[in-house]
Amino acid sequence: MSRIDGRTPEQLRPVTIERGWSKHAEGSVLISFGDTKVFCTASVTEGVPRWRKGTGEGWVTAEYSMLPRSTNTRGDRESVRGKIGGRTHEISRLIGRSLRAVIDYKALGENTVVLDCDVLQADGGTRTAAITGAYVALADALTWAKDKKLIRHGRQPLTGTVSAVSVGIVDGTPLLDLCYEEDVRAETDMNVVCTGDGRFVEVQGTAEAEPFARDELNSLLDLAVAGCADLDAAQRAALARTL
Amino acid sequence: MSRIDGRTPEQLRPVTIERGWSKHAEGSVLISFGDTKVFCTASVTEGVPRWRKGTGEGWVTAEYSMLPRSTNTRGDRESVRGKIGGRTHEISRLIGRSLRAVIDYKALGENTVVLDCDVLQADGGTRTAAITGAYVALADALTWAKDKKLIRHGRQPLTGTVSAVSVGIVDGTPLLDLCYEEDVRAETDMNVVCTGDGRFVEVQGTAEAEPFARDELNSLLDLAVAGCADLDAAQRAALARTL
Amino acid sequence: MSRIDGRTPEQLRPVTIERGWSKHAEGSVLISFGDTKVFCTASVTEGVPRWRKGTGEGWVTAEYSMLPRSTNTRGDRESVRGKIGGRTHEISRLIGRSLRAVIDYKALGENTVVLDCDVLQADGGTRTAAITGAYVALADALTWAKDKKLIRHGRQPLTGTVSAVSVGIVDGTPLLDLCYEEDVRAETDMNVVCTGDGRFVEVQGTAEAEPFARDELNSLLDLAVAGCADLDAAQRAALARTL
Amino acid sequence: MSRIDGRTPEQLRPVTIERGWSKHAEGSVLISFGDTKVFCTASVTEGVPRWRKGTGEGWVTAEYSMLPRSTNTRGDRESVRGKIGGRTHEISRLIGRSLRAVIDYKALGENTVVLDCDVLQADGGTRTAAITGAYVALADALTWAKDKKLIRHGRQPLTGTVSAVSVGIVDGTPLLDLCYEEDVRAETDMNVVCTGDGRFVEVQGTAEAEPFARDELNSLLDLAVAGCADLDAAQRAALARTL
Amino acid sequence: MSRIDGRTPEQLRPVTIERGWSKHAEGSVLISFGDTKVFCTASVTEGVPRWRKGTGEGWVTAEYSMLPRSTNTRGDRESVRGKIGGRTHEISRLIGRSLRAVIDYKALGENTVVLDCDVLQADGGTRTAAITGAYVALADALTWAKDKKLIRHGRQPLTGTVSAVSVGIVDGTPLLDLCYEEDVRAETDMNVVCTGDGRFVEVQGTAEAEPFARDELNSLLDLAVAGCADLDAAQRAALARTL
Amino acid sequence: MSRIDGRTPEQLRPVTIERGWSKHAEGSVLISFGDTKVFCTASVTEGVPRWRKGTGEGWVTAEYSMLPRSTNTRGDRESVRGKIGGRTHEISRLIGRSLRAVIDYKALGENTVVLDCDVLQADGGTRTAAITGAYVALADALTWAKDKKLIRHGRQPLTGTVSAVSVGIVDGTPLLDLCYEEDVRAETDMNVVCTGDGRFVEVQGTAEAEPFARDELNSLLDLAVAGCADLDAAQRAALARTL
Repeated sequence: MSRIDGRTPEQLRPVTIERGWSKHAEGSVLISFGDTKVFCTASVTEGVPRWRKGTGEGWVTAEYSMLPRSTNTRGDRESVRGKIGGRTHEISRLIGRSLRAVIDYKALGENTVVLDCDVLQADGGTRTAAITGAYVALADALTWAKDKKLIRHGRQPLTGTVSAVSVGIVDGTPLLDLCYEEDVRAETDMNVVCTGDGRFVEVQGTAEAEPFARDELNSLLDLAVAGCADLDAAQRAALARTL
Repeated sequence: MSRIDGRTPEQLRPVTIERGWSKHAEGSVLISFGDTKVFCTASVTEGVPRWRKGTGEGWVTAEYSMLPRSTNTRGDRESVRGKIGGRTHEISRLIGRSLRAVIDYKALGENTVVLDCDVLQADGGTRTAAITGAYVALADALTWAKDKKLIRHGRQPLTGTVSAVSVGIVDGTPLLDLCYEEDVRAETDMNVVCTGDGRFVEVQGTAEAEPFARDELNSLLDLAVAGCADLDAAQRAALARTL
Repeated sequence: MSRIDGRTPEQLRPVTIERGWSKHAEGSVLISFGDTKVFCTASVTEGVPRWRKGTGEGWVTAEYSMLPRSTNTRGDRESVRGKIGGRTHEISRLIGRSLRAVIDYKALGENTVVLDCDVLQADGGTRTAAITGAYVALADALTWAKDKKLIRHGRQPLTGTVSAVSVGIVDGTPLLDLCYEEDVRAETDMNVVCTGDGRFVEVQGTAEAEPFARDELNSLLDLAVAGCADLDAAQRAALARTL
Repeated sequence: MSRIDGRTPEQLRPVTIERGWSKHAEGSVLISFGDTKVFCTASVTEGVPRWRKGTGEGWVTAEYSMLPRSTNTRGDRESVRGKIGGRTHEISRLIGRSLRAVIDYKALGENTVVLDCDVLQADGGTRTAAITGAYVALADALTWAKDKKLIRHGRQPLTGTVSAVSVGIVDGTPLLDLCYEEDVRAETDMNVVCTGDGRFVEVQGTAEAEPFARDELNSLLDLAVAGCADLDAAQRAALARTL
Repeated sequence: MSRIDGRTPEQLRPVTIERGWSKHAEGSVLISFGDTKVFCTASVTEGVPRWRKGTGEGWVTAEYSMLPRSTNTRGDRESVRGKIGGRTHEISRLIGRSLRAVIDYKALGENTVVLDCDVLQADGGTRTAAITGAYVALADALTWAKDKKLIRHGRQPLTGTVSAVSVGIVDGTPLLDLCYEEDVRAETDMNVVCTGDGRFVEVQGTAEAEPFARDELNSLLDLAVAGCADLDAAQRAALARTL
Repeated sequence: MSRIDGRTPEQLRPVTIERGWSKHAEGSVLISFGDTKVFCTASVTEGVPRWRKGTGEGWVTAEYSMLPRSTNTRGDRESVRGKIGGRTHEISRLIGRSLRAVIDYKALGENTVVLDCDVLQADGGTRTAAITGAYVALADALTWAKDKKLIRHGRQPLTGTVSAVSVGIVDGTPLLDLCYEEDVRAETDMNVVCTGDGRFVEVQGTAEAEPFARDELNSLLDLAVAGCADLDAAQRAALARTL
């Protein structure tokens, strides 16, 4: 099968990760998965939310949002509607959980990192690009925090690396990293978040049409694990560059 | 390993499904998974939301909520706070998608079914009990709609059955249908929604502590598929009783 | 005149009061006035709202809500609409005032009791059932608080008993405890809250059609006082049973 | 007993009713009950809310609000807080019901009157002053509507007059028309809305401290009926003046 | 050119400033610019917002609002809509900045003054009337605060006087103090806030139709400065009267 | 005087205007004024808001927002707070008015253009950069609309060009195009919107400390007019490049 953009089923779209995209944020990244572009910033502040004070442990949280014209037709701003939609809530929570999976709260100390993932242009896979980019912004922010002596412990707050990719079954074929047009046509859609050592942080599979069988699930997981390994390499390469 | 309530790892809590719990709703069920009790109603109305008018297709949606004192400590009402939290949004969307997976929109015709799942008492697994109970309420509501000739087509709008269960790894052991105390201690937590023929509608696994390996994922899926088969039997038995 | 359900004008609907309906709440009751069913929980917490701190006095408040399909046609959730309606506000305030009328704040000490009254099924008289049930839940919660030594004073925080009933004039006849169909047709509608010694805590009468005369008001009050005496007996009987 | 402002127990505060206080509104009144000043406007528009269209019947509704510094200490604006409080809701609903009690919807035709009652200065009795003033504004607005031929029927839409007054028991003595200082000290507080022929539209009595007995209720009702008769005379005198 | 109400281009509408219009507020004024009537209160409280605590400096802020029927057709209440509109926000901020321009925060000490400007009747120029009236209310409130020894310093917190007026170009002619009908027809509309010594606090000019040239801007500024001088005199005269 | 970044008082920061920054929007620009970066999109839709239907005239509106970490310390999202702040409202309105000043509604026909201006990085002058960039996005969107035959009239909907710049007095010296650090220290701050022929669309001057005199205002206007001429040239150069 030839995909709409000429990729093979197990191929990622071109991935770019530009660090230092903001002069204000402690960590910042403009990540693209093909035409999907997400601007990720990591903001470090001393102190933690009230319910965590005095525990000696830090906190990491995330907020996701789409610019109104990041999509093909303009969407209303959630600030104008006065409330956050269910999809936004769901993705913000997913990003937060995914990054917290590689954080050692004790090593972080009573500091908070907020990850803001704003979609500048959407073409499928915005949440997986957001997680992958937010990891790099987070890594830079923690380096900054160590330089500023905010993190006093010898231990490294990051316990591993994390990246994410979407997979899905389109016309019966399992595909990696769906673009919008593929996503719309997918019978089954799955987002997988992996650590660099190939274990799972999140697995979220949804039957969009027919329920899916165990062997289909297995094919999708195989694709996703391989895709995350490629993303892990891209993250490492980006972090290896001088900022 | 002996579980806190004496169950074996692959054992469900006692499941009860009482139909006809409301004199007003077209379908209604009080379902319990052990001490978790969810009141599910299915409300049928003629017509569909604006964006679906004229398509000849119906719509099914769901809303989930917890009574303020369904939990061990009282939670604020979302109506009083003036906004719906992320968790509520996420679960409402999950229930809706799960039930839509077994609906033939054309056979439903331009009718809408709203599933309300209100947690009266929570002890872990509220979302999976809600899906399992909502299916029975939905089945009753569709029978009502056929009796009232709202559904004119010969075809059955329900294309299958659906149930859901939680699974998780606690102290290294995969367990079925976690109660609250187990849920809090789980390293990995997964909600699985299956059709009666053992295929997947939703798979949502989250590493609460350590990332999980592929073979752990497989053990959890095995447990969940077996648990859903038991729930499917409980649903069939409930629906076989005279209302 | 024969009423729609065969009652005499001065007859209550069957009243049931089931205590201990929640494993979490300090007091809990499922009360029914005929087909009206309200789930009442009493939640005790140490401490009081900020404006009351340091006074040595406690606080009691209430929140009322209807499940979306407690009525004949489904109503929108107030959490989804993002605001609480006027009727809900009004009834929550009425329940709170009614219960506070039998509380000795000094004897309660700096503890707060929140009464949640959620209507599971509505058939007229939901606010009066809520007050009557909430009283029983409150009594159980205060017993719990004494057992836990949260209430240290020798004095009893409850200074009396309280119950409530609706009365109305339908087709010129004063009736006790209106069901929904009677309520809709009533020319005058009144909710009366009495203490066990027959005095008034709240009297709220409204002309739905014609203004009402003084002697009509007197007939309604006579009916209500007698009805509250019956409810008082039902409350005592319920509280006399072993939990 | 001598009251704080020298009145006898059965005496109203000085009442003034100034008509034509707005150049824009179809009816407008500045009413004062002593130091309580409420600005009431009646706005007439052709047409009715959606749920009433095609019935040939009109609608009357009311909104009540207090300016932030109408009270002794400044209160937050409800527009700034983003929601309307329970007390505001309750009073707006009371005013609307009270005025609708003297409206013949058929005679009004498919027109809507909105009564806005904004408290400029509060000293107790703001809701009763609002009802009493709104009646006069409503009468002027209906005259305007007849002049403009918006109301085509020969019948008069106003079926009677309506006014309201507060009564309460202070230090054991029943008093008419409580000022703020009396209101705060009242053991029982009652708002009574009467038609000009001495019948009741609303009776709302609340025990602020001790429950009240039947004979106390009767004394309060006697005072209120006499007070409303005085207010009825004041309304008639105001309407008799040339605008 | 003869203006709609017979004024010359450089003439203000009749201005009245009534002090002491509220018995509760520390300063209060009913100001009218022709048919525009704004009720301004100044509320003094000890203490400052959290972000200013411990600085030894005070704070002055303002809120503006229009009563729903202050305009020709009734507008929805912002409290009912649940949010404040952009125009209201903009004007509240303008009033606050304008008054803060003549405040010495150190001399005020850690006290807060809130200026509430509620439009009772609108006929153009409500924001400029509000600023002009709020100044007088503020002056009275500061006198009160000095009498109460809330302001301990010898210095005067008011560093000058401030007033405001609108100007605009209608049919090619620059006009002072536009009424509503002129405002609607204006090609250019400008609000100017001046101190008593003729300097500018705010200049806000907007081309409603054609962009405006530098010489038009100059003509408008000339008119405005002269108008503010007249308003300054009216403020002084009002403050010279015994309260 | 030497400015913090070495500019002369009458010098703009480096201005870059990148067109075609979004694959979805009909017009899109990333504009930078030094370190201030604003992403502007123009979205064209057929049809107009309800209140404008059937007039044959189009509509142009704007929304402005800052990403949470566009500033030195992270700000809360307005979507999370559930309401839009006064500053955001004010700037959105300013951008909309400024662009509408160069639109011929008749020539636009019943089409709507929404301008979204999202600040990616803030360093002073975000609103003026937004207006300047939005003009270019608007021009591209209108070219697109003509190509798509959405605009049928021969006339050009754009009647001129528009750009904006901030000016202010810092340490007594009038400066053009303030960066954040200068803005914070400015005694007077002014935003000026000009058309390409040097006339004014908006003039908004605010005394941040001392009121400003007429000659200071004149100096600032001189600077602003010259600055807008430079921006006009930058816009023309950007639009002259092939997209």
